[in-house]
Amino acid sequence: MAEGKFTGEQVLNLARRACIEGNASFDVVPEKCALLVIDMQDEFVKPHWTPDWIPEATRQVPRIRKLIEHCREKEIPVIFTVYSKTHNYLDRPKTGPSMPGWYSELKIDRSSFFKEGRIWHELAPRKDEIVIHKPSYGAFYDTPLETILRNLGKDTVIICGTITYCCCGMTARQAYERSFKVVFGSDVTSTDCPEMQEPELKVLRKNFAKVMTADEIIQMLK
Amino acid sequence: MAEGKFTGEQVLNLARRACIEGNASFDVVPEKCALLVIDMQDEFVKPHWTPDWIPEATRQVPRIRKLIEHCREKEIPVIFTVYSKTHNYLDRPKTGPSMPGWYSELKIDRSSFFKEGRIWHELAPRKDEIVIHKPSYGAFYDTPLETILRNLGKDTVIICGTITYCCCGMTARQAYERSFKVVFGSDVTSTDCPEMQEPELKVLRKNFAKVMTADEIIQMLK
Amino acid sequence: MAEGKFTGEQVLNLARRACIEGNASFDVVPEKCALLVIDMQDEFVKPHWTPDWIPEATRQVPRIRKLIEHCREKEIPVIFTVYSKTHNYLDRPKTGPSMPGWYSELKIDRSSFFKEGRIWHELAPRKDEIVIHKPSYGAFYDTPLETILRNLGKDTVIICGTITYCCCGMTARQAYERSFKVVFGSDVTSTDCPEMQEPELKVLRKNFAKVMTADEIIQMLK
Amino acid sequence: MAEGKFTGEQVLNLARRACIEGNASFDVVPEKCALLVIDMQDEFVKPHWTPDWIPEATRQVPRIRKLIEHCREKEIPVIFTVYSKTHNYLDRPKTGPSMPGWYSELKIDRSSFFKEGRIWHELAPRKDEIVIHKPSYGAFYDTPLETILRNLGKDTVIICGTITYCCCGMTARQAYERSFKVVFGSDVTSTDCPEMQEPELKVLRKNFAKVMTADEIIQMLK
Repeated sequence: MAEGKFTGEQVLNLARRACIEGNASFDVVPEKCALLVIDMQDEFVKPHWTPDWIPEATRQVPRIRKLIEHCREKEIPVIFTVYSKTHNYLDRPKTGPSMPGWYSELKIDRSSFFKEGRIWHELAPRKDEIVIHKPSYGAFYDTPLETILRNLGKDTVIICGTITYCCCGMTARQAYERSFKVVFGSDVTSTDCPEMQEPELKVLRKNFAKVMTADEIIQMLK
Repeated sequence: MAEGKFTGEQVLNLARRACIEGNASFDVVPEKCALLVIDMQDEFVKPHWTPDWIPEATRQVPRIRKLIEHCREKEIPVIFTVYSKTHNYLDRPKTGPSMPGWYSELKIDRSSFFKEGRIWHELAPRKDEIVIHKPSYGAFYDTPLETILRNLGKDTVIICGTITYCCCGMTARQAYERSFKVVFGSDVTSTDCPEMQEPELKVLRKNFAKVMTADEIIQMLK
Repeated sequence: MAEGKFTGEQVLNLARRACIEGNASFDVVPEKCALLVIDMQDEFVKPHWTPDWIPEATRQVPRIRKLIEHCREKEIPVIFTVYSKTHNYLDRPKTGPSMPGWYSELKIDRSSFFKEGRIWHELAPRKDEIVIHKPSYGAFYDTPLETILRNLGKDTVIICGTITYCCCGMTARQAYERSFKVVFGSDVTSTDCPEMQEPELKVLRKNFAKVMTADEIIQMLK
Repeated sequence: MAEGKFTGEQVLNLARRACIEGNASFDVVPEKCALLVIDMQDEFVKPHWTPDWIPEATRQVPRIRKLIEHCREKEIPVIFTVYSKTHNYLDRPKTGPSMPGWYSELKIDRSSFFKEGRIWHELAPRKDEIVIHKPSYGAFYDTPLETILRNLGKDTVIICGTITYCCCGMTARQAYERSFKVVFGSDVTSTDCPEMQEPELKVLRKNFAKVMTADEIIQMLK
């Protein structure tokens, strides 16, 4: 392959390989890592409670817990994010309620949802751990997450939580954009539509993150 | 369906419907729109030139051109983005070269790529149109795009260009996050792997954008 | 005066006049205003409590209260900012403790300061009013203040509080930078060194804000 | 002095001392520094050309040149900023033309000002040095300056240029806010009104920067 001579087949194969087998070549130094646990709050995890429940998130709780505990043991900071009733909800992107994912067609009372921002009890943060009440999908937008990570001296974020293609994926893209190394947990992130998990991982693998299973992450942090 | 009684099947169906049939309910006012033409530069469009060539982007040129011309006629500002040799490339996310999408395995001379940031000649901007030399995938990061749109009095961006799941999708997410209404052209955005187009559109449809064909967009702007 | 013929005396006179007599020419529309009350918290207002006490801030309480009450009457949103123990203080600019304004030479226990972020009781926010717990001097940095103002449809901020040349002035500069019209209260902002008030007002007057007394602001909002 | 017992006189003395004699206690490591040369362009430096000419900036050229040359010798990156006709001026803060510092009262043709962004010839950047075309007073707003500094591995900025209380001071505040150590050159920054130099240095000294003469900076970087 040479400049000016790439065939359609060649560029397709290059892209596919990067999406499917890609593995970011950067090294991960455990002392430089922080674990981000994205939105594992009752609204998404507590079975049957809201229309936003992600059954797969509930199923992943034990695996996420194991990852959290391993990080605590290794003194890797664990940072949680949640949605709650911050600033009377005036800090939210304006068109949110117009989007189909809002499920406005359901005529239900939502006033008790996304109010306290309670993290699912099995994953409850320790008193000294940071919880970021974020106003938007991406954990970096309009929050001091980047400042916190730099003050902690971290250059790598490990992402778990929910939803893979929304808050987790957006946070991964933002971390990449801010020059962090991004590790993305393939089996500790979840989607409402199972068929959407792998396509999102492909995008992340090629362009934004080192995609690994929880076991591989734990192994790497040993 | 009621609080506390959502079944796994119900939440799955809700999510799937939003991804597949979703249609953001906001209204689009032509006077408030700007068209963003993302990265339709030689590196991605000129056949065979680079390993980053997107053959589908080349095929979409006539359709994108028609959309641009319609916007010009309606006095909707057309804003282009490109990558070029800005700030000696020191403005780029640090881990870029470590990502599989960089194709470092190819031992080719890249020094003439992403240097001038020349937009494909059939889509060349007019002298008075703005070209943003962006340092990262998302057109809003480290650029004055948001300021420009606000100074122009625009609250809606229409996105076309390439790659759907990377620069276009990231720009859509950022525009949503900044409270813009986002219209995303389903057949004027392109991917290197054709099978990645629809999954990205699903994500955008549910949470970030009104996804429409170029013909539908033109109809809406009449 | 003409291009290429400006004398040193002329440019000095132009600058001085702008600093001293300058008056921004934009119009203020009451419906587009929000009042920002910067850091009127116990640490700065409660007499004798901390080394950061600003006696002039205490003296200005009645005047600020009058301004707040007038805004409430006119349904102009009142937004408060405070420092508190957010994110275990990890969200703060890193070099803060190295700065002389930190008064590290005083060997006192600071653990009860800047913890709750209690606003001085005479200016207490109503339950429905927004309080922003900001991590830095400027109220816009790493907070959703800009998003909140845009969601409220406001294009003008009126600034009162303390310290004029630090948090108030920085917030004014950031608001200007983000294309807001800025009104700055000359007698409802205060400094620890009285001789620093007027120089800061000169800078703001020339480049960043319409500087007015509280009475003039109230008159304008009638 | 103790909690709850600070007198008005004590807090005044503390503040004054910090403003006048203050000296930030952080250490500066030459390998971690970058020099920022703010807006030393023809519009501000070329004698008599524009109403924005700063005679003191012209007088400081030899001293700034010495500082630049010393940094080049020590391989400390020199980064320049300028205003130019970027994005058809649509990237500027909206209320700029309403401010007194705009000198709209002068009925002169400004079309040749702030167009090319030419740096004064005696301070011309080398080919490999970065020039940031900034849209606003502060060099960090809507530009990739922070990204560039982090990619260069720098944690300290040394600021010289013009105007002290405007673009230089705003850039210092933004650098502080972003956790950089800030060194501010007291005799290599200039104002249009000489009496405004010292008050701005007082603010910076107390809260934002280590204020030093060019000779002291050069000595420190040896």
